[in-house]
Amino acid sequence: MILDAFDSPVGAWLTVTEPAGGSDTIVVSSRVRLARNIANFPFMSKASAAQKQELCSLFEQRVAKLGMANLNFMMLDTASAHDRQLLLERHLISKNLAAGEGARGVAVSRDETLSIMVNEEDHIRLQVLRSGLKLQECWAQADQIDNDLQQHLEFAFNHRFGYLTACPTNVGTGLRVSVMLHLPALKLNGDMDKVFAAAKDMHLAIRGLYGEGTEAVGDFYQLSNQTTLGRSEEEIIHELESAVLPQVLYMEQDARQRLLTQRPYLLDDRIGRALGVLKYARVLSTEETLFHLSYLRLGTAMGRISGVSMALLNRLFLWTQSAHLQVEAARDLDPEARKVHRADVLRKYLNL
Amino acid sequence: MILDAFDSPVGAWLTVTEPAGGSDTIVVSSRVRLARNIANFPFMSKASAAQKQELCSLFEQRVAKLGMANLNFMMLDTASAHDRQLLLERHLISKNLAAGEGARGVAVSRDETLSIMVNEEDHIRLQVLRSGLKLQECWAQADQIDNDLQQHLEFAFNHRFGYLTACPTNVGTGLRVSVMLHLPALKLNGDMDKVFAAAKDMHLAIRGLYGEGTEAVGDFYQLSNQTTLGRSEEEIIHELESAVLPQVLYMEQDARQRLLTQRPYLLDDRIGRALGVLKYARVLSTEETLFHLSYLRLGTAMGRISGVSMALLNRLFLWTQSAHLQVEAARDLDPEARKVHRADVLRKYLNL
Repeated sequence: MILDAFDSPVGAWLTVTEPAGGSDTIVVSSRVRLARNIANFPFMSKASAAQKQELCSLFEQRVAKLGMANLNFMMLDTASAHDRQLLLERHLISKNLAAGEGARGVAVSRDETLSIMVNEEDHIRLQVLRSGLKLQECWAQADQIDNDLQQHLEFAFNHRFGYLTACPTNVGTGLRVSVMLHLPALKLNGDMDKVFAAAKDMHLAIRGLYGEGTEAVGDFYQLSNQTTLGRSEEEIIHELESAVLPQVLYMEQDARQRLLTQRPYLLDDRIGRALGVLKYARVLSTEETLFHLSYLRLGTAMGRISGVSMALLNRLFLWTQSAHLQVEAARDLDPEARKVHRADVLRKYLNL
Repeated sequence: MILDAFDSPVGAWLTVTEPAGGSDTIVVSSRVRLARNIANFPFMSKASAAQKQELCSLFEQRVAKLGMANLNFMMLDTASAHDRQLLLERHLISKNLAAGEGARGVAVSRDETLSIMVNEEDHIRLQVLRSGLKLQECWAQADQIDNDLQQHLEFAFNHRFGYLTACPTNVGTGLRVSVMLHLPALKLNGDMDKVFAAAKDMHLAIRGLYGEGTEAVGDFYQLSNQTTLGRSEEEIIHELESAVLPQVLYMEQDARQRLLTQRPYLLDDRIGRALGVLKYARVLSTEETLFHLSYLRLGTAMGRISGVSMALLNRLFLWTQSAHLQVEAARDLDPEARKVHRADVLRKYLNL
């Protein structure tokens, strides 16, 4: 069981302390990702099956030399669909890597704050995750690991363009910095358009819970940079952190305040219904669960409900997803049985 | 306050004992109605304002002579809209009488099992209500009161056609017998079409919660005869009671059994969600409340939930309606405030 490789029921990047009402109630997590390719190897689209296999082996050998404690490498082409789904739900691999073909793998740290995907769109995609707004810390660690990797692997680099990547949008720094935002009040007030407009003005992308090509569910949005070329890593991070994020955080805080002062009973109605359904339903889909958990998170952040901790919510967000549910049940569950078991798990933990 | 005229928070016809799982869990109540017109008075559509007034006065004087204990007569044209709504919610007057114009009134017994409307579609409409399946008892009492009234009032009667009424569909016996049915399982299984087809075959009408022209809400349906001419009262009652009702009751019992054996978790999901929403929502419309209370009634009838008695449910069905809510709050409430207060009342009583 792949989950045995993990330290805790949720990754360290989700192990938050209780929010004091600050930006941590809105910024769920920070993420820095670097795209790298090995010099003198064809890009993924041109690589043969043998070359993909060779790349995995090379990486595995070199990672061993990195001397980074607690970094486990696993091949994904030979892993079960269940284990791939589990890694996806924990945000340690991308949808592309989970569903991909051919030799590919991932190295994951025991605390789940670091993962290095091999043979995704690029040969190497390194990500560092942190709870709350911690882009600087993420970048510092990513930069350190990038340097460590370069002791053992030569990356494709052009002195004019910077790091070379499979897709031109990543050329240069190969950097994507993103924050996962919880914006239920903006969504409820119908003001998400303003966020999309602000992001567009600043050349930022807004995506769903599982990154590119996924829907925003449970009012969670990933805000990230689109430009990787022509500016330093520090400039890219600074722009997201200073120019855009404060504006979005202010908008969400303002929307929450307006809900509270104008029609508090409507706010409490949403939160109450969410709690009522999660406590009493017997059949629950992933989507509906995320929808309701989102309101419990809002209620907890705003102090409108007690007895539901952020730690419990983070656990429930994770453990009500398909692969995690099957770990909890210790058996395979068909889609219908999953919905029933999901409701069982929620009733168990929300039995206040 | 008109409600002071009533004995209890719900009429005696709703004061059920706990169901033993028999037909009482499906047949909420029985009702017999007689349409009568006073001889030598024009029908309502032709009556002048003065004649309508005269009719009310005549009725009031004669009713006093009836010597029927606990029968209160009140004029409705001078009653407040609030009081008319209250009587409508208690099923003591029709929507037509509540919304009508000109001199009109109603005599109501203290226990609310008998009401006599004056100047509805006909001069006199007498109804007897009972909890559960009690058509024979209803008819016996209605017949007795009809005889008593005829000691003091001469009714328009033709020896060939029988009692004459404003609408030809009531000519003859002037009798309408109906049962209020709770059919949530048939509705849930999508089998209400079969009931409508069976009713049509037997020339019976199916209507909503408040009679003619009203929607079926909360899975409550009124089943009643359409033919009033050419057959005796006993034949009409017998046909509803023996030929049709057992079939509908069997269909609902069968639908409940199938829910229980095939997918009990779907049944418990509906019931649980209903309980969860009613216990935790802060804003509730009448329609949504009836929808959820209907599932609580099903859950209680089938023994799937405990702690919610039929008596409490009957009270909640009644007291969550607009006029009753305002009695409970002891003040006028605008539509938004009513929704909030409705949720408050439900949380208070369902605080299990």
